[in-house]
Amino acid sequence: MIRDSFRTYCQEKLMPRILMANRNEHFHREILNEMGELGVLGPTIQGYGCAGTSYVAYGLIAREVERVDSGYRSVMSVQSSLVMHPINAYGTEAQKQKYLPKLARGEILGCFGLTEPNHGSDPGGMETKAKYNPSSKTYTISGAKTWITNSPYADICVVWAKCEDGRVRGFILERGMNGLSTPKIEGKFSLRASATGMILMDEVEVPEENLLPHVSGLAGPFGCLNNARYGIAWGALGAAEFCFHAARQYTMDRIQFGVPLARNQLIQKKMADMLTEITIGLQSCLQLGRLIDQKKYTPDMISMLKRNSCGKALDIARQARDMLGGNGIADEYHIIRHVMNLEAVNTYEGTHDIHALILGRAITGLQSFTVGK
Amino acid sequence: MIRDSFRTYCQEKLMPRILMANRNEHFHREILNEMGELGVLGPTIQGYGCAGTSYVAYGLIAREVERVDSGYRSVMSVQSSLVMHPINAYGTEAQKQKYLPKLARGEILGCFGLTEPNHGSDPGGMETKAKYNPSSKTYTISGAKTWITNSPYADICVVWAKCEDGRVRGFILERGMNGLSTPKIEGKFSLRASATGMILMDEVEVPEENLLPHVSGLAGPFGCLNNARYGIAWGALGAAEFCFHAARQYTMDRIQFGVPLARNQLIQKKMADMLTEITIGLQSCLQLGRLIDQKKYTPDMISMLKRNSCGKALDIARQARDMLGGNGIADEYHIIRHVMNLEAVNTYEGTHDIHALILGRAITGLQSFTVGK
Amino acid sequence: MIRDSFRTYCQEKLMPRILMANRNEHFHREILNEMGELGVLGPTIQGYGCAGTSYVAYGLIAREVERVDSGYRSVMSVQSSLVMHPINAYGTEAQKQKYLPKLARGEILGCFGLTEPNHGSDPGGMETKAKYNPSSKTYTISGAKTWITNSPYADICVVWAKCEDGRVRGFILERGMNGLSTPKIEGKFSLRASATGMILMDEVEVPEENLLPHVSGLAGPFGCLNNARYGIAWGALGAAEFCFHAARQYTMDRIQFGVPLARNQLIQKKMADMLTEITIGLQSCLQLGRLIDQKKYTPDMISMLKRNSCGKALDIARQARDMLGGNGIADEYHIIRHVMNLEAVNTYEGTHDIHALILGRAITGLQSFTVGK
Amino acid sequence: MIRDSFRTYCQEKLMPRILMANRNEHFHREILNEMGELGVLGPTIQGYGCAGTSYVAYGLIAREVERVDSGYRSVMSVQSSLVMHPINAYGTEAQKQKYLPKLARGEILGCFGLTEPNHGSDPGGMETKAKYNPSSKTYTISGAKTWITNSPYADICVVWAKCEDGRVRGFILERGMNGLSTPKIEGKFSLRASATGMILMDEVEVPEENLLPHVSGLAGPFGCLNNARYGIAWGALGAAEFCFHAARQYTMDRIQFGVPLARNQLIQKKMADMLTEITIGLQSCLQLGRLIDQKKYTPDMISMLKRNSCGKALDIARQARDMLGGNGIADEYHIIRHVMNLEAVNTYEGTHDIHALILGRAITGLQSFTVGK
Repeated sequence: MIRDSFRTYCQEKLMPRILMANRNEHFHREILNEMGELGVLGPTIQGYGCAGTSYVAYGLIAREVERVDSGYRSVMSVQSSLVMHPINAYGTEAQKQKYLPKLARGEILGCFGLTEPNHGSDPGGMETKAKYNPSSKTYTISGAKTWITNSPYADICVVWAKCEDGRVRGFILERGMNGLSTPKIEGKFSLRASATGMILMDEVEVPEENLLPHVSGLAGPFGCLNNARYGIAWGALGAAEFCFHAARQYTMDRIQFGVPLARNQLIQKKMADMLTEITIGLQSCLQLGRLIDQKKYTPDMISMLKRNSCGKALDIARQARDMLGGNGIADEYHIIRHVMNLEAVNTYEGTHDIHALILGRAITGLQSFTVGK
Repeated sequence: MIRDSFRTYCQEKLMPRILMANRNEHFHREILNEMGELGVLGPTIQGYGCAGTSYVAYGLIAREVERVDSGYRSVMSVQSSLVMHPINAYGTEAQKQKYLPKLARGEILGCFGLTEPNHGSDPGGMETKAKYNPSSKTYTISGAKTWITNSPYADICVVWAKCEDGRVRGFILERGMNGLSTPKIEGKFSLRASATGMILMDEVEVPEENLLPHVSGLAGPFGCLNNARYGIAWGALGAAEFCFHAARQYTMDRIQFGVPLARNQLIQKKMADMLTEITIGLQSCLQLGRLIDQKKYTPDMISMLKRNSCGKALDIARQARDMLGGNGIADEYHIIRHVMNLEAVNTYEGTHDIHALILGRAITGLQSFTVGK
Repeated sequence: MIRDSFRTYCQEKLMPRILMANRNEHFHREILNEMGELGVLGPTIQGYGCAGTSYVAYGLIAREVERVDSGYRSVMSVQSSLVMHPINAYGTEAQKQKYLPKLARGEILGCFGLTEPNHGSDPGGMETKAKYNPSSKTYTISGAKTWITNSPYADICVVWAKCEDGRVRGFILERGMNGLSTPKIEGKFSLRASATGMILMDEVEVPEENLLPHVSGLAGPFGCLNNARYGIAWGALGAAEFCFHAARQYTMDRIQFGVPLARNQLIQKKMADMLTEITIGLQSCLQLGRLIDQKKYTPDMISMLKRNSCGKALDIARQARDMLGGNGIADEYHIIRHVMNLEAVNTYEGTHDIHALILGRAITGLQSFTVGK
Repeated sequence: MIRDSFRTYCQEKLMPRILMANRNEHFHREILNEMGELGVLGPTIQGYGCAGTSYVAYGLIAREVERVDSGYRSVMSVQSSLVMHPINAYGTEAQKQKYLPKLARGEILGCFGLTEPNHGSDPGGMETKAKYNPSSKTYTISGAKTWITNSPYADICVVWAKCEDGRVRGFILERGMNGLSTPKIEGKFSLRASATGMILMDEVEVPEENLLPHVSGLAGPFGCLNNARYGIAWGALGAAEFCFHAARQYTMDRIQFGVPLARNQLIQKKMADMLTEITIGLQSCLQLGRLIDQKKYTPDMISMLKRNSCGKALDIARQARDMLGGNGIADEYHIIRHVMNLEAVNTYEGTHDIHALILGRAITGLQSFTVGK
């Protein structure tokens, strides 16, 4: 039911906006408010104005929104999994009361600062530092985060920094704090309907009540990422479904050599491959959602499906673009947009190769991330 | 439970025989009797000495036996899905009484004659003819079938022939009938532990009570093939699982450049890919089994998973063989045998490409099997 | 020598302009004049102010310019192979005198109108008509062409139309003729540094001296396309080379987990694959160029290498983009631009699949373009 | 000319023997004598009864023989590149006089012992030891070599062993020496027409005049392997050509759904891919041969083409097998034999992945063979 009403919203309200938003790199901030009204922000959280749905429902939501655009799903994933989830999981009651209802309504927008310019796949190398000032009961945070979805428009930033004890901890930063800036990254040819930027922190002074107290170490951000990756696993297949259906319709309608393009073996084989991967991928996402709802999952399962969905969705989108021939490069057919988007989706929150090595480690007990020098 | 006891049988009783059976192209006929005792022949049939299991259980059985060898699974599939199933589904009560219990016990062995020398992927072109003789109340059947699993040792053959009204019908032929011969095909480099041959029929006279009366047209053999393909979808992944585990163990044990081969990124990536495909493939087979048990499936679903499992299993076996380096060509490591077997499995009961076109037709409503001349 | 001086021009003059040109979809018209000065427009033509180089040299030029951008190479290909070539090969002496020197200097820009909205891969279905008017000694041409590189800025259009005798013939149309318009196609996410549009002809009256008299039938445009495809075969690999070198440098410079990314097996394997395909592809282009220079080639050879270069270059660019991780979606790293460009390059002048069928026909003598209805 | 007469021999004399030789794992020793008569053993060597051809000619010879069977080419490669080449390059005049003429005539058969049971891809870990005995002027050699082509029938073995100074050196061992045995490896499902075995050395006493004096270190065996790999690069494509032509002919002759299989798009696309890779691969082998003849090559070039030819040939053979449907698993169609053979060919003398890392090192200057523990 959630899915059906949300699907209607996505198709009727988001779809008409996406073409120009993507063409002109325009982020429609008001979408957050609309999503808030529909109850799809932080949907699995109980209380604080959140819907308290199952993880299966969360997955279906992600699939519907990414059927329109991965940028919109990114905005939603960040708000739900990377901002609301850590506050709910690691925050104080006061933090939850203060932020969650507003985030759930889309009244304020959040972002998540983990990745640094010099550390993409190895967050352990984090350079951002937090220093405690006993006198003022504040932390002074300095460092730079990059490729941060939502940052240019975010009202709050959940930022991860290394404390003096060498442990990574999370902090809630608010726009307006001295020393905090969030410049936009220009010239992005992926996820253009969402804004991406940096979080630059030059001795930002953060009150200690903005520390997320209930987690330390990389378990904190990794827990958030797992949450988000689960949504991506569903979402990427939603994008793939759009591409499949659009390419199917195009080749049914387009007549060449006297028959629909879809009558050709080469076209049918592509569609058979596409539909097979979508079907078995979604089936597995559904099963994973049930396991999460039963608390029987492991993070490796999420790695497997994040990787599988993204890699396959990217392939499917590329095949679909090819099926549209010359028209496939025009944004009004939407598929080239998904191709570009999925490049980022396949990369962020663990690249295809990094997740291969995570799975490899799970299979063998041997890590192969680091190599001899 | 069925799976566990059958797995024990497969690993303890079949595994030790397969190396020399495959090397020397020897078919161990007694395996049928052993399987009969375990209740895994025609397992989904109710009554007539059959176990009456679910289709999910049938799938698990197929997976366990093919984990050892696709040839053994082929023998079992033919007996269960292509001989017992049509007798049960399309036969008379007398036929069921006469044949099913003996087939279920493995006392007699059956084969299935559909494919003809000139008609691999298009059974509609069938040349085998059945002519009714009113005087003797018999049919005279002439024609040739080829690539018939079990035929050289079969006691009965379920043969499909075109009747004078142009409709295809099924007949039960018994070894010893005049004009019937079943020569073995030599020089086979796939499924060597099972026997493959032809069914040559030179005016074989078959009593009319051996006609399967309750079906006509290609729906008859296609119903059997769907049944068998479902088992193949599970079984092929069983073979893939063996290859994955064997390659994993080999690369864990084999030290090169001072570390286990499994410590290398290139090896770990292969294993991540293999395990992902096995996992999502099995997940989908399980869901399909449940849908069959609920009678909610369509044949296209079976096409999709037969194709997916076989194609992926073949890829996985090839990757596994590669991971074993030079040792990978020795039969004692078993993987090269699976590679060779899966070539046939990917081809029979609908090739990878034919199932692509079946799916393509389901997707588009347009058939692309036939092309202009 | 031509290559070296042209490479210098490309790297020093074109490379600095391309980032913003692509980002803002801006076509730098003046590039034509610069190329004209360097003698690289219509370079294989003897006389009329053209350089008269070998086809090998033409290929090297295409490779250098596409190393910067496929859009720039497209502009050059159209001018050289699709406008100057047909005038030189099929035109009158007067036409050559009138147009070639100006085209060679880049003083005027040309475009080529073959593809129609309803006929991408089957130009035989052409709907554009030319009707001869004996009284005025003119042809009246009506129809629409689409996906025409250069059309929005072109001074002349070589347009193919079906005459009253059912034969296709070529005409030189000039901007300013009544009924001729060339609207730009908006929202293109490929080849953004070149302009693409339509050619709309509403009863355009063209003097008979603008007919290209020395060819009729599809041999005319196909001859041009072969010429252009040869350049594309070289050019696409130039783009691939850029991506390879850029990804190599990036992964050499980028430190993750304490070592350069390039130290990882997964990265090295990608580079080994990329360099292998570039090397063997270029080697074959060189051999083809020599065969063309010796007039010993067949069009099928060009199909083979156009298809191979484009398909492989697209794969290479995608791999390169992946190797850059998150940075790979930013246009300042240039690779995402090549990824998008090569989608069009792999599609235009014969898609990857269409060239497969052209080769298939050459191999078998059987055409499989058309299928039964 | 050499190629044409040798092709006739291969097709008329070898082709009729291969079917049963492969089926029954029979090595026709007399083939060596026949090849000797034709002058194709050690063909690039000047003098000593050798033909003194170019490397291009050597490549053409390898291609012709592997068109029939990779096992036959292996026999020839070992004799020429791994036995005659090191004697010629690293041996004394006396050794050359003694062995080369007999090897060139095929009167005696040689093998090459480098790979050890525990060291496939890292010959640096060699365990075979050679200890000098000053009193008897002999070396005592102990160790085991495995996967040695020709060993069960070899009259002499070029064996590499680690001397007391830690340097690897080559020795010529003769059948009949005490402590030397060469057991055959059973159960091989690849290269069955050639014999493969071990070289077991239990304190074999070898006269010092059997040491190859002019090389030490791994440069010795690596020089041989480069020589052999060059032949493999050509040969593997010869096998691929056979598969392509056989599959083409099969699909031209085989009628399904009323038309030749070759009329189908899916079939034509496979053939287009196959022919493209064969063409560009051969073109590059030819260029490499010329560079070797001009002494302008580097070993990395050979790695690139050994890897490319073998990997592509294996893919092509698999595609061809698939195109033959059920018949593709019968050895009388020859393709399944090539599929099995090419598994070994893709693995030996540097696996596909090892050559990727060799190329990766050449590209980056960083080795990634060894990883941290």
